[in-house]
Order: sequence, then C-alpha cells, then structure tokens
Amino acid sequence: MKEIMAVIRPTKVNETKVALADAGYPSFTCQIVLGRGKKLMNESIVEAILEEGDVPQSTLGEALSEPTRLISKRLFTLIVEDEDISPIVKLLTEVNQTKTPGDGKIFVLPISDSYRVRNGEHAADAY
Amino acid sequence: MKEIMAVIRPTKVNETKVALADAGYPSFTCQIVLGRGKKLMNESIVEAILEEGDVPQSTLGEALSEPTRLISKRLFTLIVEDEDISPIVKLLTEVNQTKTPGDGKIFVLPISDSYRVRNGEHAADAY
Amino acid sequence: MKEIMAVIRPTKVNETKVALADAGYPSFTCQIVLGRGKKLMNESIVEAILEEGDVPQSTLGEALSEPTRLISKRLFTLIVEDEDISPIVKLLTEVNQTKTPGDGKIFVLPISDSYRVRNGEHAADAY
Repeated sequence: MKEIMAVIRPTKVNETKVALADAGYPSFTCQIVLGRGKKLMNESIVEAILEEGDVPQSTLGEALSEPTRLISKRLFTLIVEDEDISPIVKLLTEVNQTKTPGDGKIFVLPISDSYRVRNGEHAADAY
Repeated sequence: MKEIMAVIRPTKVNETKVALADAGYPSFTCQIVLGRGKKLMNESIVEAILEEGDVPQSTLGEALSEPTRLISKRLFTLIVEDEDISPIVKLLTEVNQTKTPGDGKIFVLPISDSYRVRNGEHAADAY
Repeated sequence: MKEIMAVIRPTKVNETKVALADAGYPSFTCQIVLGRGKKLMNESIVEAILEEGDVPQSTLGEALSEPTRLISKRLFTLIVEDEDISPIVKLLTEVNQTKTPGDGKIFVLPISDSYRVRNGEHAADAY
C-alpha cells in the first residue's frame, strides 16, 4: 500500500477527478496548497490567483512577497494498492501534462497500515 | 516513530480533540480537506457544506462538479511513538465510528527523523 | 529522497521562504494548518488568529472550543535528496528558533518514487 501525492494546477482539478473516477479510482482528498518549483515567477499567474480569489488575503500577502512568490496549487492524495501505482501515475501524468513548467510533481510514499473507521477493518503492509 | 493521518467528519472534530487530549495525546495538526470515498454523492451533504460555509467559493465550484463530488472532511495528523499507534487508532475509531459510510479512514506512515525547532532536539527512527 | 514536513509559526513564513531560496532550495508547498503541541493555550495567540483573519469562521469555532484549542500554523513540505536533509533541517531550525514553546517541529519521511508531470521524468529511491 502506498500514498500518492500529486501537486497539480487548479485548472486541472475537474479533469483529474473525472479521469480518476472513470478509471475506477474514485477515492482521494484534495487540498489547496501554495507552492513553487524552480521557475522564476510569471506575473500572469499572480493575476490568475487574484482573480480566482480562493486564497485568504493574509496568505496572499505571504504569496506575493519576494523573492519566492508562491502559486496556488491543488494537492491530490490517494492511498492505493502497490499494483495500482503505475496506472495511476500514468493517468495523472497524461491528464496534467501541458509540457510547460508548472505541470506539477507526483510523489509516492510508503504506508505501514490502514484502517476503515466504519468497521475497524485493517490492512497492514510490510514495506 | 510514525505519522497517523485520520480523515474524519467535520462534525467529529471537537469530540476527537477532547478524546485525544483526555488520553494524553494533545499534539496534532488539523486541516480542511475535500475528499470522497467509494460512495455515490448524497445531496444532503452538499447542503451541509453550503450551510457550513467554510469552503472558498471557487473550491465549492470544483466540489460540486460532476461526476465525483467532493465532501468537506477534516484531516488530523499526529506524529507518535510506535507503542502509541494501537491505542490512538482504537480511540480514533471509537470516537468517529457511526457505522455509516463516510466515517473516514486512518493511515499510518513511517517517519525517519523528527526535530524540535525550539531546542534542535533530534529523535531518529530506524524504520 | 525524503519528504521534509516543517510546522512553523505564520510570522516566520517570509523569512523561511527567503532563507530556503537563498540556500538553493526554492521548491516547496505551504499550507495553513491548525495545530497544537503540548502547551496550554495563550489567549494572546487567539487574538492574533482573530486579527489575522485567515481562518474560516466555522473552523475558528472549532479552534476556540475547549479543552484543546488549536493555533494557526503553516506547514512547509519539501521533497529533497538525502544529502540535503541535514543542511535544510539546520536552516529551518535557525530561521524558526525563538527558543520559546510553539517554535514548531520538523519531520522527515521516506519517499519511494517521484515523477515530474511535465516530461514524465522518474526518480526511484530504494529506502
């Protein structure tokens, strides 16, 4: 069992959700994060954040301060079986790839155990 | 040392906080996340999100779009010693179990190292 | 490859960003989290959260409820090469250390794989 963390563009959230559901992976969480990669800032992206308006004002202040301006991103988290990692990474890459900087990153982390709260169901994973 | 991630219902936040503190585990972070499991959407939950009003408008738009509508959840993160995992998972399960779909999931991840910023204190963990 | 999670004070976000960029580590995500350590609540911090105004009202209600009030924190996440962990932990500690409770914690987690969405570039890590 593994955790997949995918940092993607806000504009790709819907397409990613649909693609995951269509492929049989409907379970995930999505969070708003501010992030940046190694690229210098593009002013038009700041405009996009401002227009989108989903970042609290005080955070925006942080986001706009020099020298490492932050960009509004979405973090998808999925917990999946090992054999599902490869098709999900392929799917996430295809849906989110515009081949321009800022397309995002996908990280895979080991999971030791998981439990379903409803019935206490437990799955252990020797990693 | 391990990380415990628990995705729970917003309505269970206070009870969970009190239970953790009473049991001697007062340290954690809590985040708003949007998520979904394998269940189809229940319209009344969308109403609850709308009334609760804690999701930015633009994110709500994302949350309401088909076909995989997202539900407002809370993510608790605790970093704990290995021997505390079992009692904490038991406690989180008991507090959050309504035995209906949407009760949430608990995941355990390995932690390699931890540091306390105040004094630089370091605890390593061979995993 | 490792994930570094640093929970720090909101007032230290800019200084941390600048320090990371200056040291050659410009890539990270930043999130608003509510958290608490082992310390009892300081009323002045609640005032600070209220004035800062970046926490949704319903969450504030949760944050203010007894007995384990939550404090607004920022979570930095960096994915780094193993040899960069030590200098980054040192830097984060130096920048965020006020030597008073609430300075935060730094956790290091193993990463199994990483992918760049733009070009499908893959880096595996035997952990």
